[in-house]
Amino acid sequence: MSYADPSLEALLQRLLTQYQPRYTEGKVANYIPALAQVAPAQAGVAIATLDGKVSGAGAFEQQFSLQSVSKIFALVMAMNRLDDELWQRVNMEPSGQPFNSIVQLEWEKGIPRNPVINAGAILVSDVLVSHYSASKSAFLSFIRRLAQTDQIYADQQVYQSELEHGNRNAALAYLMKSFGNIEAEVPLVLAQYFHQCATAISCAELSRALLFLANRGVQPGTQAQICSRRDAHRVNAILSTSGMYDQSGEFAFKVGLPAKSGVGGAIVAIVPQFGVITAWSPPLNRFGNSVVAMQLITAIAEELGLSLF
Amino acid sequence: MSYADPSLEALLQRLLTQYQPRYTEGKVANYIPALAQVAPAQAGVAIATLDGKVSGAGAFEQQFSLQSVSKIFALVMAMNRLDDELWQRVNMEPSGQPFNSIVQLEWEKGIPRNPVINAGAILVSDVLVSHYSASKSAFLSFIRRLAQTDQIYADQQVYQSELEHGNRNAALAYLMKSFGNIEAEVPLVLAQYFHQCATAISCAELSRALLFLANRGVQPGTQAQICSRRDAHRVNAILSTSGMYDQSGEFAFKVGLPAKSGVGGAIVAIVPQFGVITAWSPPLNRFGNSVVAMQLITAIAEELGLSLF
Amino acid sequence: MSYADPSLEALLQRLLTQYQPRYTEGKVANYIPALAQVAPAQAGVAIATLDGKVSGAGAFEQQFSLQSVSKIFALVMAMNRLDDELWQRVNMEPSGQPFNSIVQLEWEKGIPRNPVINAGAILVSDVLVSHYSASKSAFLSFIRRLAQTDQIYADQQVYQSELEHGNRNAALAYLMKSFGNIEAEVPLVLAQYFHQCATAISCAELSRALLFLANRGVQPGTQAQICSRRDAHRVNAILSTSGMYDQSGEFAFKVGLPAKSGVGGAIVAIVPQFGVITAWSPPLNRFGNSVVAMQLITAIAEELGLSLF
Amino acid sequence: MSYADPSLEALLQRLLTQYQPRYTEGKVANYIPALAQVAPAQAGVAIATLDGKVSGAGAFEQQFSLQSVSKIFALVMAMNRLDDELWQRVNMEPSGQPFNSIVQLEWEKGIPRNPVINAGAILVSDVLVSHYSASKSAFLSFIRRLAQTDQIYADQQVYQSELEHGNRNAALAYLMKSFGNIEAEVPLVLAQYFHQCATAISCAELSRALLFLANRGVQPGTQAQICSRRDAHRVNAILSTSGMYDQSGEFAFKVGLPAKSGVGGAIVAIVPQFGVITAWSPPLNRFGNSVVAMQLITAIAEELGLSLF
Repeated sequence: MSYADPSLEALLQRLLTQYQPRYTEGKVANYIPALAQVAPAQAGVAIATLDGKVSGAGAFEQQFSLQSVSKIFALVMAMNRLDDELWQRVNMEPSGQPFNSIVQLEWEKGIPRNPVINAGAILVSDVLVSHYSASKSAFLSFIRRLAQTDQIYADQQVYQSELEHGNRNAALAYLMKSFGNIEAEVPLVLAQYFHQCATAISCAELSRALLFLANRGVQPGTQAQICSRRDAHRVNAILSTSGMYDQSGEFAFKVGLPAKSGVGGAIVAIVPQFGVITAWSPPLNRFGNSVVAMQLITAIAEELGLSLF
Repeated sequence: MSYADPSLEALLQRLLTQYQPRYTEGKVANYIPALAQVAPAQAGVAIATLDGKVSGAGAFEQQFSLQSVSKIFALVMAMNRLDDELWQRVNMEPSGQPFNSIVQLEWEKGIPRNPVINAGAILVSDVLVSHYSASKSAFLSFIRRLAQTDQIYADQQVYQSELEHGNRNAALAYLMKSFGNIEAEVPLVLAQYFHQCATAISCAELSRALLFLANRGVQPGTQAQICSRRDAHRVNAILSTSGMYDQSGEFAFKVGLPAKSGVGGAIVAIVPQFGVITAWSPPLNRFGNSVVAMQLITAIAEELGLSLF
Repeated sequence: MSYADPSLEALLQRLLTQYQPRYTEGKVANYIPALAQVAPAQAGVAIATLDGKVSGAGAFEQQFSLQSVSKIFALVMAMNRLDDELWQRVNMEPSGQPFNSIVQLEWEKGIPRNPVINAGAILVSDVLVSHYSASKSAFLSFIRRLAQTDQIYADQQVYQSELEHGNRNAALAYLMKSFGNIEAEVPLVLAQYFHQCATAISCAELSRALLFLANRGVQPGTQAQICSRRDAHRVNAILSTSGMYDQSGEFAFKVGLPAKSGVGGAIVAIVPQFGVITAWSPPLNRFGNSVVAMQLITAIAEELGLSLF
Repeated sequence: MSYADPSLEALLQRLLTQYQPRYTEGKVANYIPALAQVAPAQAGVAIATLDGKVSGAGAFEQQFSLQSVSKIFALVMAMNRLDDELWQRVNMEPSGQPFNSIVQLEWEKGIPRNPVINAGAILVSDVLVSHYSASKSAFLSFIRRLAQTDQIYADQQVYQSELEHGNRNAALAYLMKSFGNIEAEVPLVLAQYFHQCATAISCAELSRALLFLANRGVQPGTQAQICSRRDAHRVNAILSTSGMYDQSGEFAFKVGLPAKSGVGGAIVAIVPQFGVITAWSPPLNRFGNSVVAMQLITAIAEELGLSLF
């Protein structure tokens, strides 16, 4: 474990004490049984900075379900295999629709609006299945390498639960396949997608794993070039317009940072040239974003003056 | 006129020489006759910096039609009169639809997605009509004060042309009124809206006028607080997710700055803590964004390393 | 007044006694004040047969607001002036959408789905304004001639009320005008449309007025050819797929006759080679169709075996 | 084989000679290879009347692919097992959308607009799978019994071809399942659906098989009650508003009979109290309806005065 920054720790502790009780304002995701069982009264927050320090408060080392935040890792893996071809199969525009809308996908002839809505992420999973051998374990290896730990794993109970309740995502995948925009067999693509979503990870691990996006594609410490500077920029741009479901505009308004949330209760925010903040608490607001994580990140960005605008 | 920065001027001159010939890739806006008459082979670019300098190249002092860039000024004026009430009448989310789509407005019960699509800007014009006396001249005074010149005016020929071809905007306005979201009489609101669009302004004037958005709401020089720091941040956030029509995501991807374009051929980009870039050239791409202005701003942001991400 | 058929009268009286108390299941139209004032506990029913007899029960001679049933008369007038040109400006397909949906109109580039949804009827009013001199009185003369009475008139209070609350219809009209599908000035078109809707008429008058549609275009008695046999057929076909708002399919299912309803509480059903049934009672179901009129017409069609299928 | 009516035969022969050459105006369905191979220059037409006679002209005894006309038989089978429950799972309203639109299905929460669009027919197949044992052969037995011949079969090449190109229908099925409106496993439901579509049948067989719909549910000859009088009426009502894809309104306009078409090139029209007309020719117009079959049925209805209106 790396060193922590005492003043950041104090800040995180203070804000957690202030906001954690507000988890009662939201509802834990219940679309799959495995997520519905998670206890609501939990929260954690961690900041990894470019100097390699990780500071946290609350349950910041407890693992939760990565869910849609996994879309970032899969996207970077797909960008590392396909270049412009990827952007002919998926757009990079905000969707202006609920996150799993099939309507827009039909209008736009099977081309998803962007790679972080469900349809786009399923397409990205198709790229992984088609362009990586052993694509499930390749995904897990990638995220473990980034987080520098082998503790991260795919939660089999969550994975099975996703598979059993994935009819809407199956509809999205078959619709794209009917437009010729999915290469592999749909069941393989969905298995890859749900496997990614089922990743178990902690705030500390997730913050560290995404540091390369705050550092122009380079992993601090190892100095490995995880993706090109240009692609790191691109991912941040997509997250800033589309990462927070149908609350992306409001998040830009209030926080002003590229971010991604998942129905497991995590929100991760990238602060270019500074670091990565992850907050987690299971209860969600009506947009599917964690109530407490949203408040924590808003407060941190305000106190530290992190807004890009 | 203020002083210019010689090295910026040299950069702008070089890029203009490089990109200006590409105006043939686009088409001048033809939805109103007054705009269709504008000669295509023109371009200008200007950067105003927080130190008060304005550097330009090409036709940077020639006036053009402000069109949708006027939405920024009207929005700031509306924010200065209404607080949270404004955000109950208009959302702040990207639209994911062509810029004047009436479909989305009906789905969302007369609440526009954001204040820089047409429906949202018409709603903002309603706020000006209802909350400013002599709202047309109040708008003109505001923009003159910001640009520190009386040379800016409303082009009567453009204004009349807009009025005669404004049936689609009338449809948007009456639809919002049917949902109770327009206070004033629709013809007054449309007159205000078209009057704003018809503003004649130059690259130099426009860059200077928007400096307060790059400076936390404060006009450099006069130190006047044009809007709150919070509202300056908000405007930049909205522009970053929604300012470039259905190319907003791609612009974030390529440039990474809050920006707004208009069918008169202008694109303005806000660079927080640095200044404002305006590029202008009439021919537009299929999204309604100026081909040459897009290329100029992309190149400037890249050469100066201005991306926020 | 013409003679009545005693056995039909007895049937109508019996059914009215049975169904009239069920008016409490619906709600009087309240989108304009002038209609909201109508007392709910009223009902009337009349059948005009091709032999010239009119049989009625209840308030069958009391006048009510014609509202959307006026679309039939206006359509016949428009068909008498334009031939195939009309069907290039309006389709003849069921809409599959709530009756005043602006979404579909935008998708289909300003061409309404059929002439009995609001957009289509506004287009028909544009034809009347553009192709009849004194089009308002021409409409009234037409309907008086058909009903053979001068007691029919335009209710000025309803007309004014419609005008004041007609913003949604104005949106439809301006949207069609933006696509070049409205010839006259929009305010004139809306005045014509609302004037038609505001017609005051009784069940007896309405049944008699529409007999030509049950008689291949010929008015019984006078033997005047009101429209071609082909056009009478066409109107009946449109009414059978689209006359009952989003309950048209269910009505075909239950009744099996061309019909049209209006928010004034009337439903008129055409029985080819037999006659015309009009039932009226103000309270409406959630589709905008009169609860009691629906039940009366269903029961009459069943008892007399009138279904076409 | 039953006797023919010489005057009907002469009429059919004359019209076939007149219209058959117009097959060049359309294009054979090419969405599956097995259909794309069918020779275009073919046509047949047959009328079965309630007296048991079948008159035909051209290739009226040649078998073709039943495709969407199969929806009628499946619907009757489903109505014979479920009563009102069926109509809580599928509506009976015209769709106003292209025949396989997924948009409308999402808007209406997985409830198809009617049982003869693809989504509705897939739901009906789910009912057959869930409520009949050996549902594939039950379907084939039903249609053989109705046509009184064992010559009708499921074309395995067409069936396989459908399965391989059925991604869009899979998307519809999974979307309905995500809303809880499909009981069986999706692959079983799709197999049932495609099996029905792949039925090989001739004009003469099809006309005879559907006579019960022109005879209040009773099969002429055997006098077997195939479905209730009420359900026969219902099926005809649905066909009259929705049987001809997005040309249903125009068909009511021109022909005025309940009808159903399939992309195999068949159109069948029910004439209550008279009989059933089937015309077939492979090339389709842009709505998916056979060009020559449409012209044949229009002409027959006109010459024999069959319109219901």
